Amino acid sequence: MAECGMQNAKCRIAFRIVSAFCLLHSAFAVFAQTVPERIIAHALESNSAYETLAHLTDEIGPRLSGSANAALAVKYATDRFRSWGIDVVDEKVMVPHWVRGEESATLVSHRDQKIVLTALGGSVATPPKGITADVVEVTSYDELTQLGAKVKGKIVYYDNPMDMELVRSGRAFEAYRRAVQFRSSGASRAAEFGAVATLIRSVASASLRTPHTGALRYDAKLPKIPSAALSVEDAMLIHRLIARGDRVRMHLVLTPKTLPDVESANVVAEIKGSEHPEEIVLVGGHLDSWDLGTGAIDDGAGVAMTMETLHILKELDIKPRRTIRCVLFMNEENGLNGGRAYTAAHKTDKHVAAIESDAGGAAPTGFTTTLKGDALTSLESRVGFLSRLNANRFEATAETGADTSLLIEAGVPGFGLVPDPLHYFDYHHSPADTLDKIDAKELAQDVAAVASLAYALAEEAPSHVTR
Amino acid sequence: MAECGMQNAKCRIAFRIVSAFCLLHSAFAVFAQTVPERIIAHALESNSAYETLAHLTDEIGPRLSGSANAALAVKYATDRFRSWGIDVVDEKVMVPHWVRGEESATLVSHRDQKIVLTALGGSVATPPKGITADVVEVTSYDELTQLGAKVKGKIVYYDNPMDMELVRSGRAFEAYRRAVQFRSSGASRAAEFGAVATLIRSVASASLRTPHTGALRYDAKLPKIPSAALSVEDAMLIHRLIARGDRVRMHLVLTPKTLPDVESANVVAEIKGSEHPEEIVLVGGHLDSWDLGTGAIDDGAGVAMTMETLHILKELDIKPRRTIRCVLFMNEENGLNGGRAYTAAHKTDKHVAAIESDAGGAAPTGFTTTLKGDALTSLESRVGFLSRLNANRFEATAETGADTSLLIEAGVPGFGLVPDPLHYFDYHHSPADTLDKIDAKELAQDVAAVASLAYALAEEAPSHVTR
Repeated sequence: MAECGMQNAKCRIAFRIVSAFCLLHSAFAVFAQTVPERIIAHALESNSAYETLAHLTDEIGPRLSGSANAALAVKYATDRFRSWGIDVVDEKVMVPHWVRGEESATLVSHRDQKIVLTALGGSVATPPKGITADVVEVTSYDELTQLGAKVKGKIVYYDNPMDMELVRSGRAFEAYRRAVQFRSSGASRAAEFGAVATLIRSVASASLRTPHTGALRYDAKLPKIPSAALSVEDAMLIHRLIARGDRVRMHLVLTPKTLPDVESANVVAEIKGSEHPEEIVLVGGHLDSWDLGTGAIDDGAGVAMTMETLHILKELDIKPRRTIRCVLFMNEENGLNGGRAYTAAHKTDKHVAAIESDAGGAAPTGFTTTLKGDALTSLESRVGFLSRLNANRFEATAETGADTSLLIEAGVPGFGLVPDPLHYFDYHHSPADTLDKIDAKELAQDVAAVASLAYALAEEAPSHVTR
Repeated sequence: MAECGMQNAKCRIAFRIVSAFCLLHSAFAVFAQTVPERIIAHALESNSAYETLAHLTDEIGPRLSGSANAALAVKYATDRFRSWGIDVVDEKVMVPHWVRGEESATLVSHRDQKIVLTALGGSVATPPKGITADVVEVTSYDELTQLGAKVKGKIVYYDNPMDMELVRSGRAFEAYRRAVQFRSSGASRAAEFGAVATLIRSVASASLRTPHTGALRYDAKLPKIPSAALSVEDAMLIHRLIARGDRVRMHLVLTPKTLPDVESANVVAEIKGSEHPEEIVLVGGHLDSWDLGTGAIDDGAGVAMTMETLHILKELDIKPRRTIRCVLFMNEENGLNGGRAYTAAHKTDKHVAAIESDAGGAAPTGFTTTLKGDALTSLESRVGFLSRLNANRFEATAETGADTSLLIEAGVPGFGLVPDPLHYFDYHHSPADTLDKIDAKELAQDVAAVASLAYALAEEAPSHVTR
């Protein structure tokens, strides 16, 4: 402390040097804003992705494969790319055309109490006047197998609540995967034992008597029986009644139709690479949506942000070294025909990375990726700019998205945007998937994350490219 | 610290004295548990109110006035009182019989996008095939008046979101009162200028595309036009489209019917006072509910807890000094005929207090009351036992409930149970008002609060009784 005077003088000099250096550094930083930083700044100031999304949802509406709205979405996206001066082609995809009909149910055993439900996508119909049968509850396929012939002529209800602790701990997608099994295969499994219909509890993390649909898959060797998702409240009611020992008997009417397949399209747009145009970084989401809501979180948001990725590069006149291609897939929800058609048509293309965005439009948290080890560490060291967006968490995983899953299987490094998943399954596949669930600022942050990562991958491809 | 030895010896003696005192005090406390404490302990251990509520909601279901279910609810409540050995009578009430029909809407201006809405209770029908008209938005009656003849032939949409800051700050009922004005009088106000229908934004603090109904009142001097509540999402959609300058044109089908009035009943049960049987403490809720949900929070919970008040007194063989009467009112939702009929039939009865429970079944926080000043202070000093339930907050107010409002106007001190109101309007009047929204433990706490307060009021009547 006695040396303070001398020290102070030294300090003052050091402080001046440091200050001067900082000033210089700031000036340099303005000049030397990196390309990813420019992309991020531009994305955060723009409302263009939100405008895309507002058009898809409010003006076009639900976009189930095969519908007139889905065709309009293809046209709108194609025209919008063209209006931005971006090369775009529509690539043919044949898609199923399933149309929801009447759907209603009552508990004839309980004063005809109304039951809220919705047909699962692809379900066959009941006879027009419906069926009436007792409801049997099971919680697993083991339990179903044990009941065996006892479910003959009955409606099987699979009681399988979503694990809300997982949802609240940030692992909503894991909770979803665990809960969804009875939606896809439950109908055929019960048909094997002679059930006349199946019901699931909507796979949902919130409910105000809200049914959530989703695709089922029939086993071609077994009879096709109608299948529907109960709202969580109605599932809980049936569970309570059965637990009390009541006989529960339901009248069920579902009149969906499967019409002939329809020609539709993937929308494929790109900005050519300046050095390696033959090497492609793919960004994509899916244009189709379920029919109950207007597909804002699933997956209008993904479409809007991956379209915007090209728009920003065009507006800022940025020429990436590799090609960045935006693919808007058709028919993710009930067939994946778009993903298959794209992979088949582009077998010989050299994809160096694929970023899929199909998890909503909440604030970004990072990406899932198939990269691991040194390849992931190396990438992480190059994308520090994502930390500004809180989007710098990379989670190594085997799956990064449905539409790009075939590319990933073939060895292309995959990435999946991870917006905050907390409320995603409140709305997913339900009538509540509407534009109001998207915050324009958060969507812009997603755009910034996807576009800046795509650019970085186009500048330097990940190190373990296998094709 | 040097005095520790001496101090320790003193401490030990003091500790023994205190311990002995505590033991004595505990023993005394067991012996001297007050009657309110016994009531509370019994209520918290019982599942009986929840069982009442489960029957009303799960087994009977929606209980709109005039319906077969409402009649069954009267019978069930009457039988249940009898099974408890409690005197009960059904008192005749004539009620309206309004029946919801088809309700659907699409935006013909926007690719027939589906609009989720529900008819307001009492609404007249559109022609069976519906009406098609442009939608005009207003935010106030002033704005409506300024538009005047410009709304002729149009559908008027009242855009009036609920104030969510008020809701979150614990004042959900105030937010409700502010938002609900256009539901009751909006149809007639717009009909005056030639509108063909009106729409409101559901008065709701949460939505997953959930419409909330509620009664409207027509001005007898004006044409009756159909009126419906949009889900919050659909209201926001229409608001956005109009804000963007889109012409919004709706096809609207509502086919409700008003059938002839039906004879129904208030259920009136009581436990006679041991000293002043002619002086009555009334506890009550309403048996009818809206038709969309099963009326768990509105007002199965109030019915269950006020029935349970008498049940506990009976089970514990407690004889209050004054009569405690439970009144289960019919037709609170769309007429208040039960409240009126009761008041008319019991003009000469001497009510010393009226406790109404019609605000859900969440954990209790206290009561609203018409008492104030010394009368309130005096009561508060006598009901300290409510603090164990966190139900000891008394808020002086002019209104303590709809069914008892005529008694209150005539000078009877009023009380309204206040369960935590945070989520009440998430469910109120919607399909989501179902049993799963009630926590059995919280309902038992409400029972404890209502029953112990009723007993205290029956022991010593509030000091400002005016009749």
